[in-house]
Amino acid sequence: MKLLSFKLDGQVKFGPKVKKEDAVWDVLKIQEELNVLPSFPSTIIDGISLGFDFVEQTRKLVEAALASEKADAFKYTFSAIEWLSPIPRTPKNILCVGKNYNEHAVEMGAEKAPENIMLFTKSPTAIAADEETLPVHSDKTDSLDYEGELAVVIGKRGSNIPKAMAYDYIFGYTIGNDLSARDVQYRHQQFFLGKSLDGTCPLGPYLVSKDEIPDPQNLTIVTKVNGEVRQNGSTKDMMFPVADIISIVSQYVTLEPGDVILTGTPEGVGKAMNPPQFLKAGDEVKVSIEGIGTLANRFA
Amino acid sequence: MKLLSFKLDGQVKFGPKVKKEDAVWDVLKIQEELNVLPSFPSTIIDGISLGFDFVEQTRKLVEAALASEKADAFKYTFSAIEWLSPIPRTPKNILCVGKNYNEHAVEMGAEKAPENIMLFTKSPTAIAADEETLPVHSDKTDSLDYEGELAVVIGKRGSNIPKAMAYDYIFGYTIGNDLSARDVQYRHQQFFLGKSLDGTCPLGPYLVSKDEIPDPQNLTIVTKVNGEVRQNGSTKDMMFPVADIISIVSQYVTLEPGDVILTGTPEGVGKAMNPPQFLKAGDEVKVSIEGIGTLANRFA
Repeated sequence: MKLLSFKLDGQVKFGPKVKKEDAVWDVLKIQEELNVLPSFPSTIIDGISLGFDFVEQTRKLVEAALASEKADAFKYTFSAIEWLSPIPRTPKNILCVGKNYNEHAVEMGAEKAPENIMLFTKSPTAIAADEETLPVHSDKTDSLDYEGELAVVIGKRGSNIPKAMAYDYIFGYTIGNDLSARDVQYRHQQFFLGKSLDGTCPLGPYLVSKDEIPDPQNLTIVTKVNGEVRQNGSTKDMMFPVADIISIVSQYVTLEPGDVILTGTPEGVGKAMNPPQFLKAGDEVKVSIEGIGTLANRFA
Repeated sequence: MKLLSFKLDGQVKFGPKVKKEDAVWDVLKIQEELNVLPSFPSTIIDGISLGFDFVEQTRKLVEAALASEKADAFKYTFSAIEWLSPIPRTPKNILCVGKNYNEHAVEMGAEKAPENIMLFTKSPTAIAADEETLPVHSDKTDSLDYEGELAVVIGKRGSNIPKAMAYDYIFGYTIGNDLSARDVQYRHQQFFLGKSLDGTCPLGPYLVSKDEIPDPQNLTIVTKVNGEVRQNGSTKDMMFPVADIISIVSQYVTLEPGDVILTGTPEGVGKAMNPPQFLKAGDEVKVSIEGIGTLANRFA
């Protein structure tokens, strides 16, 4: 199931994409008007905390709408809604793995990828939506760079999660662009400040439930800037695959439903080009991952 | 005003300390039963978002209780409540300044404090209360260390805050102990994992409104382990004083009400002793800051 979050008349809502239409089901409205289920979560984070039940409940609501003879009253075309990040606000900072692809570690000047996982965070105030126009922050950085990444969305609270149980804690996947102010990132040693400017964490377009991604370690990630392919990697090249990340990170940090983990970027960032190519006003960045879609943002 | 958060009958509450008594006023109950104000916030973060009005509203509730002839029904002795961190959950990770005292930077092996502010974060799942017994996590680290720090609590959303306006964005102060798993912190390069174990961010005992701390840059910080003085510093030695921290950080990260900034620790951490002295089960750490009180935690 492909879920999205959106705003309509000032209200934050969520729902599944309508199959073969550029539209979304307003499942909260279906439940309110048709009273299909004994209860239904009011936020997407409460929803994903239910695990796969959330997908099943959502399906039941869509079926009820289709059977209601007024199905059209329960869906909105994409042009009528304001898109949000599928998780509009994470419960803690976005968790990010640094240098998780060997060739990227090398292009950034390291000899090889780190032996121990490198984890930094981005402020949740940096979250932005698909198709949102983002600032280049030219007053604060001269080196804003893209990083296309597979984003894992946690569905269940946990710590000390064994590797073999890691997938139990995943609700689904989305796409992230870990936009980075390179000068700020390195000037302040710890990466947090250079990774947390407003709008530097677009996520989307969809939160795809895990049943639709049978193997997250075999997905191509392609990042294009103004149509030019800059990154063309595969998640099979992660040094720490998703299950390892969840297992290692949860030894030190309690994971919670709605937490987002950015799993690192493959080679081909702007900083590593010769000469380096940073983002400027007017640029458009598109990150595509098989089975999830394309996250597109223009800069102004 | 000294505010605290607590749990009673499973409910999270907050209120001011009763003057000269080891007790707290239940301001939510006063408002509910005596209906003193047109409205009153239901969480401490909603409260501090109101700025100094929150202190004034809280005072009015206490006055109404005292005038009600059943004042005792509106207060609880400390032994009857479960203490929480004054901010039980921050809206984003706790923001932490690294190496903000020159002598601490030197004891950690640097030549001097960094020229550019070093900012890392701790997960809000690490927050703990005053007097809470904390784990030493001996299965995960052999080098858990204390860091007594002045904690600034933000009261107003802002970015690009000029230094001269920084105090407008502060609601008040508390004490933090930035407990750090040294081995994890350095093994993973970025500090986040080593700083985010459950229970490694005790805060409290009180959130003291800023009117009671006329000069946050002239406070002594004393950290004792089992009664032995280990840190004895003054906030006048911060390399980046509070106003600078707020101004610099807000250039890169949007600050929000309830955000907590740990301002760095003075010299005297366990890692820098000869030989290093890390925390073990049975130890008690007390961090005291003038005008705020003492944050005490035992380890098990």
